[in-house]
Order: sequence, then structure tokens, then C-alpha cells
Amino acid sequence: MTKPLPIGSTIGILGGGQLGRMLSVAASRLGFKTHIFEPGANPPAGQVADRLTTAEYDDTAALEAFAASVDVITYEFENIPTTALDVLEQHRTIRPGRESLRISQDRLTEKDFLSGLGLRVAPYEKVETVNDLKKAIELVGTPSILKTRRFGYDGKGQSRIMSDDQADQAFSDIQGAPSVLEGFVEFSHEVSVIAARSADGKVACFDPGENVHKDGILATTTVPARLTSAQRTDAVLLAANILNALDYVGVMGVEIFVTHQGLIVNEVAPRVHNSGHWTQQGCSVDQFEQHIRAVVGWPLGDGSRYADVVMENLIGDDMDRVPEIAGERNASLHLYGKAEAKPGRKMGHVNRVTTGPK
Amino acid sequence: MTKPLPIGSTIGILGGGQLGRMLSVAASRLGFKTHIFEPGANPPAGQVADRLTTAEYDDTAALEAFAASVDVITYEFENIPTTALDVLEQHRTIRPGRESLRISQDRLTEKDFLSGLGLRVAPYEKVETVNDLKKAIELVGTPSILKTRRFGYDGKGQSRIMSDDQADQAFSDIQGAPSVLEGFVEFSHEVSVIAARSADGKVACFDPGENVHKDGILATTTVPARLTSAQRTDAVLLAANILNALDYVGVMGVEIFVTHQGLIVNEVAPRVHNSGHWTQQGCSVDQFEQHIRAVVGWPLGDGSRYADVVMENLIGDDMDRVPEIAGERNASLHLYGKAEAKPGRKMGHVNRVTTGPK
Repeated sequence: MTKPLPIGSTIGILGGGQLGRMLSVAASRLGFKTHIFEPGANPPAGQVADRLTTAEYDDTAALEAFAASVDVITYEFENIPTTALDVLEQHRTIRPGRESLRISQDRLTEKDFLSGLGLRVAPYEKVETVNDLKKAIELVGTPSILKTRRFGYDGKGQSRIMSDDQADQAFSDIQGAPSVLEGFVEFSHEVSVIAARSADGKVACFDPGENVHKDGILATTTVPARLTSAQRTDAVLLAANILNALDYVGVMGVEIFVTHQGLIVNEVAPRVHNSGHWTQQGCSVDQFEQHIRAVVGWPLGDGSRYADVVMENLIGDDMDRVPEIAGERNASLHLYGKAEAKPGRKMGHVNRVTTGPK
Repeated sequence: MTKPLPIGSTIGILGGGQLGRMLSVAASRLGFKTHIFEPGANPPAGQVADRLTTAEYDDTAALEAFAASVDVITYEFENIPTTALDVLEQHRTIRPGRESLRISQDRLTEKDFLSGLGLRVAPYEKVETVNDLKKAIELVGTPSILKTRRFGYDGKGQSRIMSDDQADQAFSDIQGAPSVLEGFVEFSHEVSVIAARSADGKVACFDPGENVHKDGILATTTVPARLTSAQRTDAVLLAANILNALDYVGVMGVEIFVTHQGLIVNEVAPRVHNSGHWTQQGCSVDQFEQHIRAVVGWPLGDGSRYADVVMENLIGDDMDRVPEIAGERNASLHLYGKAEAKPGRKMGHVNRVTTGPK
């Protein structure tokens, strides 16, 4: 795929959750149609997309029909089975490309990759056995955190280790899966850079946001983040470094710890990112549109910011507060159309513009 | 319908054009689904809605099935056949209500209604025959403009009269339809108020925008509009007066001429309005969400403005400029997914935030 897709083309999106939903809406704003591929029933993205395929990722015929019906393929999550990607890639371009998926699907590969670029990451050790873990604890120290190499998100597949004697418990917590022990990093706060790279290699970053997590799940992102001008530049440069190294096309979320020793990369996500939702208010082009622009081969949009914003996730029974939030001044609600509000489930978010009204 | 609809309910929208499309997206942001009813093939709103019914307005069975599948009904245009409304209304609440449609479907009824409220309108006379027209020209004077009473928009169904001897030509231009002769108003500029009223009677208005038309079609809307503080108050009060008189539920566009003699109401549209598209940038709750909130029985959102915006319509071959606009700083594109760019056809719009970036 060397030319920009004409307006009216169809973008295939793997995954029908809230990110697919907001990508779909952004695509429609630019005159593109979307086709969602999602195994689960009644996915949030299906309500706003032109087409929906409900099928498993091992359904080759469904994957091929899906690929044939779209002009380019992107995704809302990084844990897409490799076999599905093999099928799809024979028919259509996938953006961002396979290399970014290969790296982000495995925490160890990701950390090796980031270190290889000369970027600072938390101390880490590969763990395959409980003995590996004991040795790793000696090297990395405690407190530390054991994370499965694959398919972890929002605090799942993780176990905290506060002292040497917790190795067995931690290894059992993660069910003995191949994993990585990560040392704790003394950081003052976490920021993330939502970075985009176009098919012709241009990089554009949104202003870094400052993240607060609660129970392992993002709670709020605030822009502007507390960063010195030098830190801001460093953050943007390291993100650009990562995207360029991967010949990346699309939006990536880069989580960064701010420490006394400098910036430490926490993790990267090869997709639009929860910490970039604030861009829907206060930027002319939000992260979802920016991703779509890259995927269809358009030039990136201007991501400069004209307002201060605090994004708050609405998780589980936070939905009970919706009537109250709906009446707030300068609050923009974004609900995901999920039927049931389970604990820990992201149901929506609210962007509060904190710049005074005109 | 006395209670607010729960999140997850379905809103039926009559009309599948760009207004239906943007209403549908706004509904999804609040967690509602939409079902579009539209006779034409491949309507823009169908691409972003949960469901689409393609049927004519005289298809009673299709209307009934549509009504049964939704929880409330609204519309994107005022010229819905009365017979269709009669069918739908037996099954579901229609918002805004029938009275506002009755009034806005007929220019004469509308002008009588507005005058009856004590609002100033342009001088007008009812015309049914060419003799009526000749008498009307004597009363109203020239230049004046002959407009059909029903189904006119964007300059269609209109004929300008520059001198007494053009009566026959003008009457033939509008094919002898029942019509109204309107006197020209000496105005310095036109503004519009996008006003909303909730089911419990609360009124909220967006900041007035200043409109520029070209060839009878809206070209740009700029906020803030050039208005004194007193004019701003007058504009908002007269809009509220209209909505309250109609026991209106939803968003209404009120076009107003600014003259040396005060504000003169040009026309009203019982729906979201092209001159309110600027609210998508720079307001936490835009006109589309505001309309949806009213329709589902939610309280209105805060419509205060945190940025200055210029909205420009993209009409016909303005689409050729999209690549250039896509690269502009602070420009937000909104394209409608229409297949073909015909002359005079609204293909999209761009909102330019003119407040400096942070």
C-alpha cells in the first residue's frame, strides 16, 4: 500500500471494544467506513461501524472474507493471535506492522528492544522457573513485580513481591507462565506520550499527559503534565526514537516514569491508548483521527492543544455518577455502550476542560 | 414519555443525511444506539448507526416496525410527511413535537406564529395567485423575495423580485405554489442562536454565531458573533421565547438579522442546524449531544464555549481542498461519507479553532 486511500474506503478494525468504537467514529469524520472484526457478541464498536463480523480469530474463512471487504487493516489491541495476522497479511496491509506487534506481545522482547535502543527501562530479569525467579529476586531486589510475558493488561497476570520468601507464591499467582521480574522504580509520577508516525515517516506527538493509576488501572490523565521543558523534549524524542526504529505507522502510547535519574520507559502499546483520550477535547485532531490518518496514508494532523484537560475513566459503578457528571460544567462524557457495568470494567470516560470558559 | 431513557436505549432518527449522522455519533457518545429511517440508498447516517431501515415515508409497515424497534423518535429535517408522523406518533413519542413541525413546515404559519409572539419578522404577504403577488409587491415593495410556503431549503423554491414587472416571472419560477412574499431587510449581518430546551422546560443557548451565506447556502459561521452585550441577551431571550411557546423539546436553530431597528427573526428550524456545527469544537457538549440529551429526557449539558471557532462548509468541489485543509493547523475536518460531490451539495465542514494553541 503506497498511495493514500481515497475517502470512502473501508478500514478494517480488529477488536470491537471502546478503542475500536472511537477509532470507528474518527474514521467516519474523515469520510471513511469501518468494518469491525470481533469474536464477542454485541461489541461496543459494532454500534457505530458500517459493518461487523462476529467470528473467532481462528476462523480462516471469516478472516479472509473480512480482509477482502476492507482496504487496510488496523487493530485496537496488541494481543491478536499471530495465526490470524498471517492470514490477514496475505490479503491486506496491516498498520501498524507486524514488528510492533511482535515486540509488544512479549514483555521480555519489548524490554530487550527498548534497552537495545539505548533507552532506560526498569531493571528486569527473564523468569521461566521458580528458581529463575529466586535468582532474579537477588539481582533485581524487592519490592519487585512479576509479570507474565504475554497477554497481560490492566494489572492482570501480575504479582507483587515484597520480600524474598514470596517467590513461590508469586510464581503460583501467575500460574508458572513465562514471565519477567521487574524492579520497582522510584518515580515521582508517570506521564505518557501519544506519538504518531505517518506512512512517509513523519512523527507527531501530543503534549504529554500525566497519569494516575488506581488498583492497576488508569484513573486519570491530566494535561499539561508536570514536566520541565527539557523533560518534555526528552519524552518526545524517546517516543520518536521508538517509532522510527519500528518503521511504525499509526499511533503508539508510550508510558514513561519521571525519576530523579531521568525518564524511564515503562511500556509501549502499539495502538491508541487510554491515556490519550483527553485529546478528544482541546485538540483539533484527536489520537483516534491521528491513527486513522496514518493508517490510510494521509499526512498526520496538527495535534497541538488549545485547552487544558483532565480525563477521568469511568470504571464499574462509576457509572452511577453519570447523571451528576452530565450536569457538570465543562465535562464531556464518552460512554462505550457496554451493557453491563462489572467491577474493573471500563465503561466510559469524562474529559473535563479546565481552561476557563470564554 | 415522562422518565429519562436509560443508557443503552435506542433513538430512532428520521432522515439519514449528515445531521442524522452527527446526531447518531453524539448519541453513541452517551451510550445510546440509533436506528435511522431513510428512503434513499446508502445514507451517510447509516454508516455510523446501529441499524438502518431503507423505506419510503408512505410504507406504513416499515414505519410501524421502525417505531416498535426504538424508544423515542427524533428527526434531522422538518419536511417529514404528516401521514408518516401520524403513524409513528401512535407508537412512540416524537421529539421535538408535532406543533413545531406544523409551524416550520409552512413559512406562512411560521411567520404568523413568530409575529404572534411579538417578535419582529420581515414584512410578508400571503400569495396564492399572481394577482395576490402583484398586490403583495405593492405592500411589501421591492426588492423582495417570493418563497414557496412548503419544502424550501438552501435557496430552493425561491425567486427574487427586483421590480414590479417581475411578478409573472417569479410566480412561474416557483411553479405557482402557495407562497409568501417577503420584503428585504436591511441588515448588517445574520447571526443564529442554537437553542435547546429539555423535557422539563429548561432552556440553554449556545453563544450566537455569525453566518455568511453564498449562493443562498451557508458558507461560514464564526463565534463569537459581532453583537453588543444587549443584542446577545435579546437574541437569547427571543429564542427562549420561541421554544417555550412551542413547549419545545430538543435543539432549534433560530436565524436572526441584526438591523439598526433591532433583531429580526429570519427563520427557525426545529432541529440541529448547520450554523451550530462549530459547537463540535470548543464546547464540552455540542449541539448534537444537546439535542440527544433533550430527546432522551436528560438534563441539558453545559454549552459554554472555551474556544473561538470558524466553521466553513465544504460544498461540491470544495472537497478538492481537503488534502490542503487536512494539513492546516487547528483545523478539524468533518466529512459526511457522501459518495459523489455534486455542485451545491454539502459534503462536509471544517471547524477552525482561532484561539491560539496552548
